[in-house]
Amino acid sequence: MPRAITAFSNPLIKRVRSLRDKKHRREEGLFLAEGLRILTEAREAGFIPVYIFFAADSAAHPLVQQLIEAVEDNGGEAIETSRDILHKLSGKDNPQTVIGVFESFTLPLSSIDRRQAPIWLVAQSLRDPGNLGTLLRTGDAVGAGGLILIDDCVDPFSVEAVRATMGALFTQKIATARWEDFLVWLRQGEGDLIGTSLRATQDYQEPRYQTPSFVLVGNEAQGLPDSYEDACDHLVKIPMMGRADSLNVAVAGAIMAYEVLNQQRKSR
Amino acid sequence: MPRAITAFSNPLIKRVRSLRDKKHRREEGLFLAEGLRILTEAREAGFIPVYIFFAADSAAHPLVQQLIEAVEDNGGEAIETSRDILHKLSGKDNPQTVIGVFESFTLPLSSIDRRQAPIWLVAQSLRDPGNLGTLLRTGDAVGAGGLILIDDCVDPFSVEAVRATMGALFTQKIATARWEDFLVWLRQGEGDLIGTSLRATQDYQEPRYQTPSFVLVGNEAQGLPDSYEDACDHLVKIPMMGRADSLNVAVAGAIMAYEVLNQQRKSR
Repeated sequence: MPRAITAFSNPLIKRVRSLRDKKHRREEGLFLAEGLRILTEAREAGFIPVYIFFAADSAAHPLVQQLIEAVEDNGGEAIETSRDILHKLSGKDNPQTVIGVFESFTLPLSSIDRRQAPIWLVAQSLRDPGNLGTLLRTGDAVGAGGLILIDDCVDPFSVEAVRATMGALFTQKIATARWEDFLVWLRQGEGDLIGTSLRATQDYQEPRYQTPSFVLVGNEAQGLPDSYEDACDHLVKIPMMGRADSLNVAVAGAIMAYEVLNQQRKSR
Repeated sequence: MPRAITAFSNPLIKRVRSLRDKKHRREEGLFLAEGLRILTEAREAGFIPVYIFFAADSAAHPLVQQLIEAVEDNGGEAIETSRDILHKLSGKDNPQTVIGVFESFTLPLSSIDRRQAPIWLVAQSLRDPGNLGTLLRTGDAVGAGGLILIDDCVDPFSVEAVRATMGALFTQKIATARWEDFLVWLRQGEGDLIGTSLRATQDYQEPRYQTPSFVLVGNEAQGLPDSYEDACDHLVKIPMMGRADSLNVAVAGAIMAYEVLNQQRKSR
């Protein structure tokens, strides 16, 4: 049976609230995801929160009921609470009526089986949580296996990043690695590393990309370091017809990933 | 000669600060753009700010000098100020060292000459300033003529939207229209209206799109209304291989726009 918490001073409320800070997420190995849609996508992908907070007036919704049952069956805890406390937990003016606390699931590269998917996204020193979340959402759309985070990227489990994934977070594996270790791992198996660059001369639609394809994007302001570009099997350019010299990184990643997917669709 | 303002209480500082609110932007017909890069792109595209604020220690930079001269030659005003005031104007912890105040430039549809570009982006009821800015940035990249904003969209001149354009704002025309008026205008000339939809059965790479192509995207949460989809010459689907049922709207717009560009590149 769900218990009710109505006091802001409740230690669990304070603890969950603290998960909006990266430091506490790291310490606890937990993160927040908000909204019935994302929590339902999570459950369908096999991820059950350890805590679920819901507004009393949402408890009758069948999907909320199913989530509460799943959490309790799984040994987690369901907590009925007020809109004010949901607002405090989410930090949003119009908080979602359901908030889940999940165990974070970053993997070491050695746990990634590249043969499980024809496309993998790779991001280096990404800074913006919205871009990271959007890349995960695109990864889901192209049937990617997951996202490999190189060097110091923004936390994929921040509230903003999770929101931007729109639930796709739970369909994608997330691995972290230093560049040197990634390269060693990459060359132990099949696959093309594909980077986009201003200094590339080959159009992105020219090469025939091998499966699996690893689509690499760099930092928002700096792009990829030269030595990283040099390590790519294909360094290509996306045509730019205007005055600007770059695309948003999540857009560039999506255009590359769809080109790879389109080639794979045509060769089937 | 630039004048110096060091007081937070200066009326001009208060007035420029107020441009972070949509209401004041509308009333004044002005907006803020921050950063040497964006202001330089603006100047190269022929847009000179009516005011430019710069930090004393940045005045020696040749590009800042050129901007100051351009503003003064154009009858505007250059103002040397403190980092604290720049911070107050920009709202950012690490403000740019140059901030410009520009006249906003939304056009009526009747001022748009569709023959000036092979691609036009069209967005309906867009809510997120980052998405709108990213669409403008993508528009520049594909050689679009501009962005047509249908129904109630977020303000393209908000600080967040301008930031997300990375300067591409100044290469793109921006028009606003109600849907009914847009349709009348659209059918007075050449061109295909292209929408993406979950209920479409045709793959987005199947049709041969006419020039100019109008790439239409809908609201982040709702997508396009059914009646808007019905008005499209081509209603197509972008393949989705995962669990999620949609892409980020700026990503979807970019994938469509690059497909149109790629077809045009091949037919040249």
